[in-house]
Amino acid sequence: MIKVGIIGATGMVGQRYITLLKNHPWFRVTAVAASTASAGMTYGQAVQGRWHMTEAVPEEVAKLKVINAIEIDKMAKLCDFVFSAVEMPDKKQVQQLEESYATAGLPVVSNASAHRSTEDVPLLLPEINANHTKIIDAQRKNRGWKKGFIAVKPNCSVQSFLTPIYALRAAGYQLDRLSVVTMQAVSGAGYPGVPSLDMVDNLVPYIGGEEEKTENEPLKILGELQKDKIVLANNIKITAACNRVPVSDGHTACVSMSFKGKKPTKEEILSIWKKFSGQPQKLKLPMAPKQAIIYIDDDNRPQPKKDRGNEHGMAVTVGRLRECPVFDYKFVGLSHNTIRGAAGGGILNAELLAKQGYIKKK
Amino acid sequence: MIKVGIIGATGMVGQRYITLLKNHPWFRVTAVAASTASAGMTYGQAVQGRWHMTEAVPEEVAKLKVINAIEIDKMAKLCDFVFSAVEMPDKKQVQQLEESYATAGLPVVSNASAHRSTEDVPLLLPEINANHTKIIDAQRKNRGWKKGFIAVKPNCSVQSFLTPIYALRAAGYQLDRLSVVTMQAVSGAGYPGVPSLDMVDNLVPYIGGEEEKTENEPLKILGELQKDKIVLANNIKITAACNRVPVSDGHTACVSMSFKGKKPTKEEILSIWKKFSGQPQKLKLPMAPKQAIIYIDDDNRPQPKKDRGNEHGMAVTVGRLRECPVFDYKFVGLSHNTIRGAAGGGILNAELLAKQGYIKKK
Amino acid sequence: MIKVGIIGATGMVGQRYITLLKNHPWFRVTAVAASTASAGMTYGQAVQGRWHMTEAVPEEVAKLKVINAIEIDKMAKLCDFVFSAVEMPDKKQVQQLEESYATAGLPVVSNASAHRSTEDVPLLLPEINANHTKIIDAQRKNRGWKKGFIAVKPNCSVQSFLTPIYALRAAGYQLDRLSVVTMQAVSGAGYPGVPSLDMVDNLVPYIGGEEEKTENEPLKILGELQKDKIVLANNIKITAACNRVPVSDGHTACVSMSFKGKKPTKEEILSIWKKFSGQPQKLKLPMAPKQAIIYIDDDNRPQPKKDRGNEHGMAVTVGRLRECPVFDYKFVGLSHNTIRGAAGGGILNAELLAKQGYIKKK
Amino acid sequence: MIKVGIIGATGMVGQRYITLLKNHPWFRVTAVAASTASAGMTYGQAVQGRWHMTEAVPEEVAKLKVINAIEIDKMAKLCDFVFSAVEMPDKKQVQQLEESYATAGLPVVSNASAHRSTEDVPLLLPEINANHTKIIDAQRKNRGWKKGFIAVKPNCSVQSFLTPIYALRAAGYQLDRLSVVTMQAVSGAGYPGVPSLDMVDNLVPYIGGEEEKTENEPLKILGELQKDKIVLANNIKITAACNRVPVSDGHTACVSMSFKGKKPTKEEILSIWKKFSGQPQKLKLPMAPKQAIIYIDDDNRPQPKKDRGNEHGMAVTVGRLRECPVFDYKFVGLSHNTIRGAAGGGILNAELLAKQGYIKKK
Repeated sequence: MIKVGIIGATGMVGQRYITLLKNHPWFRVTAVAASTASAGMTYGQAVQGRWHMTEAVPEEVAKLKVINAIEIDKMAKLCDFVFSAVEMPDKKQVQQLEESYATAGLPVVSNASAHRSTEDVPLLLPEINANHTKIIDAQRKNRGWKKGFIAVKPNCSVQSFLTPIYALRAAGYQLDRLSVVTMQAVSGAGYPGVPSLDMVDNLVPYIGGEEEKTENEPLKILGELQKDKIVLANNIKITAACNRVPVSDGHTACVSMSFKGKKPTKEEILSIWKKFSGQPQKLKLPMAPKQAIIYIDDDNRPQPKKDRGNEHGMAVTVGRLRECPVFDYKFVGLSHNTIRGAAGGGILNAELLAKQGYIKKK
Repeated sequence: MIKVGIIGATGMVGQRYITLLKNHPWFRVTAVAASTASAGMTYGQAVQGRWHMTEAVPEEVAKLKVINAIEIDKMAKLCDFVFSAVEMPDKKQVQQLEESYATAGLPVVSNASAHRSTEDVPLLLPEINANHTKIIDAQRKNRGWKKGFIAVKPNCSVQSFLTPIYALRAAGYQLDRLSVVTMQAVSGAGYPGVPSLDMVDNLVPYIGGEEEKTENEPLKILGELQKDKIVLANNIKITAACNRVPVSDGHTACVSMSFKGKKPTKEEILSIWKKFSGQPQKLKLPMAPKQAIIYIDDDNRPQPKKDRGNEHGMAVTVGRLRECPVFDYKFVGLSHNTIRGAAGGGILNAELLAKQGYIKKK
Repeated sequence: MIKVGIIGATGMVGQRYITLLKNHPWFRVTAVAASTASAGMTYGQAVQGRWHMTEAVPEEVAKLKVINAIEIDKMAKLCDFVFSAVEMPDKKQVQQLEESYATAGLPVVSNASAHRSTEDVPLLLPEINANHTKIIDAQRKNRGWKKGFIAVKPNCSVQSFLTPIYALRAAGYQLDRLSVVTMQAVSGAGYPGVPSLDMVDNLVPYIGGEEEKTENEPLKILGELQKDKIVLANNIKITAACNRVPVSDGHTACVSMSFKGKKPTKEEILSIWKKFSGQPQKLKLPMAPKQAIIYIDDDNRPQPKKDRGNEHGMAVTVGRLRECPVFDYKFVGLSHNTIRGAAGGGILNAELLAKQGYIKKK
Repeated sequence: MIKVGIIGATGMVGQRYITLLKNHPWFRVTAVAASTASAGMTYGQAVQGRWHMTEAVPEEVAKLKVINAIEIDKMAKLCDFVFSAVEMPDKKQVQQLEESYATAGLPVVSNASAHRSTEDVPLLLPEINANHTKIIDAQRKNRGWKKGFIAVKPNCSVQSFLTPIYALRAAGYQLDRLSVVTMQAVSGAGYPGVPSLDMVDNLVPYIGGEEEKTENEPLKILGELQKDKIVLANNIKITAACNRVPVSDGHTACVSMSFKGKKPTKEEILSIWKKFSGQPQKLKLPMAPKQAIIYIDDDNRPQPKKDRGNEHGMAVTVGRLRECPVFDYKFVGLSHNTIRGAAGGGILNAELLAKQGYIKKK
């Protein structure tokens, strides 16, 4: 078993990691790190009264002593790689912390947004750009790291629509313009997060920084790997409007898309989505959804409550493909923001990196 | 005082009419009509246990005896014109009922969608097309009606964005493409309407017929009056995606818009909206919002709970005007669906028609 | 495998039965019955667009042809016993339908309330009154049935508090007065059920018939089996106030209780609950919760979202045991109304009856 | 006009005070105080982005410069009395701050809980104990204050049921036992207050300190004024269980009550409630509800959304009076927690004190 540490283990994403890693066939949680406030307690004590998962804290993790996240040497002795689920507001600080772990020889698979636009850090959505991991070689060279490295995952809003978009581009259609309006769950803001006074009989048409991430991150994910950098895709434009709605889990996206040149028929699109299979499916990674894109042929779907759990929360569920009077087609996409869009996505990244040999037992 | 009858008086829109008409300076409710089930009871008895307004039933209406909606002669004796708030599912039936009232000499100001695409029936959003009422002359001639006529109002989703769009076109900018994603309140579906099981921790990305109405009705409203018909606007294209969300009142729209030719600056747009004033404002109609378009300069707004009540529920509240990577600009619009988007909008239409002389005391 | 039929299979409770019975070690669904509207379709077609479970329709059931519930002979050929999940409003009609199935030789394990107060029908909550099944012998004799019989389960509100109450009585404490205020989930009203307009920013302090059931059914469950009847418990009084709240699943009950004579200490109560084990636990019935009563020592608990799923939705979760200024103690109880309180409870009853030999392969 | 200062003016209760005092016939807001963070800004700037009322900030208040709450001399020059809406967690600190204002010669009408159990401070619910204000004379004597004093209002949960209870006691019935289960709105916790993750598809059966307040404060309100102290009522016992539910405004209480000696009939209770009129009604205080107790004869009521606004949010709305198997009767009560239960209640107290001469122009 590969030994896993989790930085930011007491927060909501950290809790989800711990829940999802229970019984993982390759990884075992052997170290949990958090801020000074929790350091020294057992993990069970540290999350007492603020455990948000429906399953109980796994016993073997409850007993672990929480390490101060800045005690990197301690962590380095206890694990083979770490998941970073840190929630510090200061981007610079997160970058430095993650770099320190990498310097200490630990691969860092991160949920944080701090390094998403760093040129030599791969921004992985494994169904789309599993090959971008190769940039890690350049990253190590650039930074003088032998074993450590940093790999990140995209923002939770991106998972709700990008795989279906990529599938069409991969099938040869020049999908070049995209309009995305998201309705995002409150769990995306962590805990305590969004006040209930804002979510009872209400919605908020704004989430700080979310539209920029939704518009820009896909350009890197769809970008081309060149030697020692990833060149952003310049043949697609995306606009996003992001809303917070009274839903606990599951981000929904209303998407319109346009093609340049040849357009697929509706039947072709449905067929491409149905047949789509990415590296996680081909490599049969443990966390991979068997069916990466699930299309439901029912006007009322997808719905967060009914569809966020599809494929254990790892699928993108799509519905309502129809012609668009302004773009070519429109559809609705949905994914589970705290599974596929956070911890589950991070684990899938780690599985890919393990399969490719970037993560291994020391 | 002009005497008003309400057809469909016991439904939610009917109830809202009765509440809003309390103390109206020009109109007085003198007759209420509903289906056979309620006919013969007093209005107070008929809505017992299913009154959905927060204010009590106005006493003078509670005493009125409910008339069977098909007893048109009775209604014709009791009022000078009628509001139609009928909720029958069969479009044909609604059309015929409304036509029978017009034949009996009663102007019909309708909320129903049945006659919205009828060529000689004006589809009125008075800030935009107050002049379309002239088509009534042709309508009367076509149908041999002397006093009666039919005028309708647009779907509730349209009010959340169309006035700001029109204001820019009226200022000379060729706004030609529009992408609209709505998040609509449950009151739009009437009562019992949307099951709560679909609205607790959930949203539904579909409302039957709503996207077609949102895409097509604006073309008539923005159309040009020619002799005896209204020619649809053919210089604008609209795409809409309509969602039901757990909000009681207030439809929110995320809008992107593109211009052909000269584009206004952001400051110009804000200035146009601020100065905008339509016929209802110029004529000082009692129900008219003083400020038809309210712009709030706060990233978090507009929000249904905070902004639906602006100008007594008759304004369009707008926020978040910003550049759009795919279109030219994007913004968020909001209006109160059961006031501006239903009964309040109907009353404003009737006020316009009264001011213009189409509605008068017998 | 014992062959199971489900009457009322297309409703919400029926859907839950089908979902929970997937992979059941003893029972296999071989027949589904519903009203004329669905009869003749495959089950998959019949629930198209109104399937409310998060898991998909099990394939082997989706293929079954829906039988008209009144074609009892057809059903009798296809199964060894039936679950009744009929939702007809007329009590008399439900009684007759269930009796017809029993007359045709089929045991009927029912969720319906129709027969709950019938003297020779056991009202089973197996942790409490597993011995009441013996009344079936009298029932058969009374009605001339050889193989068929009717057994029913209590109202969903009762499961949230009665097992903890029983545990204390079983331990020898004369718990004689009970005040229960419930906050009940919308799924308890089926689909479409409660309108969302009543559940957005609101609650309804009334559920028709619910308080009577909550006050009276426990008297039969706690009653004494005598020869050919069950004598109602007359040493306990219950008052209930039942509220509908915007929660999808999970009924919460605020309970106060008084003892006559010796009172247990708080520690004794906690110890009794912890050690409590009923027949389902002793017989290791497949659907039985391992821990029937789960106490959580955290002021904020139990909560519907966090605790309704405990023991796969079959446990009663309890918290906040504290002294009461008017009664002796108060606490909060919670159970999953559509699992423990409906289909799951029905399956547990059938398992008990199968273990006891009342249900068997033909 | 009497000049009013508001301490804690930028919080939610402070905002409500400012909104409700707009156009008040006796009082005019002339000074606003808050913490160091806001001091020096205009009030409009200070609440920018965190104004939670649906009406806009009144212009004349928006212009006021926010004073640091500890600059008591400044405040003393600007106003005749103050409303205290401070939200500091430290009880001692609140007590001292309020005492300092009183020492400076300012009457303090407080919403804070800090001084509710202080022996010489009246805990006023004016329909019940308007005469308790006389204790102010003793208070002044005890503390050497000439003009200043402190008067407080009860916890918001108490308003939902205590006036109907008092009305029955005042009519001569020895109502001696009370069981109260509340379902309380999220606005009661202020802003940001309750996280939305806890209120989407959920409720929380606990509010820190709330049950104690609900059980104890009524004893003082119903207590007897003796010379220089208020003797707690010892002839009534109350138990309370307090729940947080996903409702924005409006606390609902399910109440059971028992009488010692003679019991009123249901008709007598209804008649007593209907005729009930307290000092605020007799003195025609501006903020007083005309009908203090409103009974609605409809099983489904009261409901927060429909009834919290009754009498401008100042009434107690009651419904579902019925016999109780354990107590004598049960009913449901409801009041608006941020109007009657907070700022509106505070204003009513000040009006009473002004009418009685305790508050006056300097």
